[in-house]
Amino acid sequence: MAEFDLIERIRRRAGVRDDVVLGIGDDAALLQPPSGRQLVVAMDTLNDGVHFPRGTAPADIGWKALAVNLSDLAAMAAEPAWCTLSLSLPDADAGWLDGFLDGFLTLADAHRVALVGGDTTRGPLSVCVTVHGLVAPGRALRRDAARVGDAVWVSGTLGDAAAALALLEGGAPVPAALRARLDRPVPRVALGAALAGQANACIDVSDGLLADLGHVCDASGVGIRLHRDALPASAGLRAAVDGEALARCQASGGDDYELAFTAPAARDDAIRAAAAAAGVAVTRIGDVVAGERVRAFDADGAEWQPPARGYAHFHRDA
Amino acid sequence: MAEFDLIERIRRRAGVRDDVVLGIGDDAALLQPPSGRQLVVAMDTLNDGVHFPRGTAPADIGWKALAVNLSDLAAMAAEPAWCTLSLSLPDADAGWLDGFLDGFLTLADAHRVALVGGDTTRGPLSVCVTVHGLVAPGRALRRDAARVGDAVWVSGTLGDAAAALALLEGGAPVPAALRARLDRPVPRVALGAALAGQANACIDVSDGLLADLGHVCDASGVGIRLHRDALPASAGLRAAVDGEALARCQASGGDDYELAFTAPAARDDAIRAAAAAAGVAVTRIGDVVAGERVRAFDADGAEWQPPARGYAHFHRDA
Repeated sequence: MAEFDLIERIRRRAGVRDDVVLGIGDDAALLQPPSGRQLVVAMDTLNDGVHFPRGTAPADIGWKALAVNLSDLAAMAAEPAWCTLSLSLPDADAGWLDGFLDGFLTLADAHRVALVGGDTTRGPLSVCVTVHGLVAPGRALRRDAARVGDAVWVSGTLGDAAAALALLEGGAPVPAALRARLDRPVPRVALGAALAGQANACIDVSDGLLADLGHVCDASGVGIRLHRDALPASAGLRAAVDGEALARCQASGGDDYELAFTAPAARDDAIRAAAAAAGVAVTRIGDVVAGERVRAFDADGAEWQPPARGYAHFHRDA
Repeated sequence: MAEFDLIERIRRRAGVRDDVVLGIGDDAALLQPPSGRQLVVAMDTLNDGVHFPRGTAPADIGWKALAVNLSDLAAMAAEPAWCTLSLSLPDADAGWLDGFLDGFLTLADAHRVALVGGDTTRGPLSVCVTVHGLVAPGRALRRDAARVGDAVWVSGTLGDAAAALALLEGGAPVPAALRARLDRPVPRVALGAALAGQANACIDVSDGLLADLGHVCDASGVGIRLHRDALPASAGLRAAVDGEALARCQASGGDDYELAFTAPAARDDAIRAAAAAAGVAVTRIGDVVAGERVRAFDADGAEWQPPARGYAHFHRDA
């Protein structure tokens, strides 16, 4: 299979949108942004053995490569629109590419994201995606907007992906529900959009809850006080690990792609209503306080020092 | 040096523009496109040992990673605006990063391109860049707009980069002027903009002249007749190689990042004036004819069959 055929194979399956003037097949894509909207751009790379375990199914890699980028748009309350894909492959394997596209395009179609360009290159397996979203001016949720007195919330449950990875690396069997959280994270796009105008600050949980809330503290010039016992855990996680390992997965595990956000405490009902409308559970886990970092406390008021995460994955949004 | 410091090091040096609402440091960048313009998006990855020789200076890698992307914008007649950068590095080397940024940001500043986001990851050395440009509706130069009767033109000279690579791979000394064409290609942004409204089809010469004009033929449903003796060569190239090797570098070498374009033959004077205004030499090298592929001819009218290129670099714009 020639390299040119790879592109043609991608082009044939790429979705369409009315605002794509020219998609795959020229030197660049030509897009018509709507007037009166801001453009939201995120870019994330997944490398073999770093951001997904070696041997991960191509469809899962495809899904995850787009999901982590859509999660960044979700955290900004942006509506996804277009993406580009740069795929580095050791060789031009049509079967691998078809599987990859199965996962990638299933998620793209679900969010009406058109794949409009990119490139294919020879190299170690690596997937780089840039996503473009749209948001009304002033509606984007930023890291620097947390205010003292805000409640701190998180969507879904925490720690499943980290537990799956830890079990996998330890050679233990991985329950399917946990593995699915690692391989097929669900970007909280509808929740992000529902939180616009309600939440103050927002971030997606990719590096681990404490690390990501730390970014919010840094950007907003505030502290956060977390209730350790309030951190949500799935039944699958509780069945697989317990004690300190459970708490560590919840607090320091990465790859959850939930949204962590702050909102004025007076809006608790509105936040719950927005989350319900988006079909996602949310849990109030703490408060924004004067200070400069995240501190976690047990139910008895004792400060909890979570152990350092085990997996240094050298990844940050720039 | 921690990974987070890499991002901070990039952020401190990134340029600014009034239309960047939020740059590096959040989940995504927030940009304000001007009304009434189309968005032009290109994405290209450079992998170590594939798109640049191993051991290439970091500043040259930085320059080239942005240059090849700006070249795609140039070929669409777009005005560059913003870029994102995904950098995969084997380790967090501050000195390497500083050198890389020297090259990358020198070129970015020259074109008023703001670096607004991306990520850094651990992995084999790889640089992925997405560039965003702007163009008025209907002004973009596309591959599918060549018409029978058009003249075919190319900017600058052809083959220097391919000759430099061939010499390098053969262990021969590489003249500095040729090496500079390989390491520091100059995107023809001003020329692309000057050709809008004058040229019909345009493409940048990244895969080699014949291959890239072949894309124009495919997209436009035309043939191209090239005059082999008209292909422009630099004095440095003529001094370094000759005969068939010279012609092969010109016709099939990649990495030149010149613009190849077609325009109605009646506009020859306007094309020369546009090129002069952009400060770039252009050469008329052939004609668009009925047909479906590129054919090259000697001065005596005999068809020339260029040998296959020596370096299969597995790279295509998608």
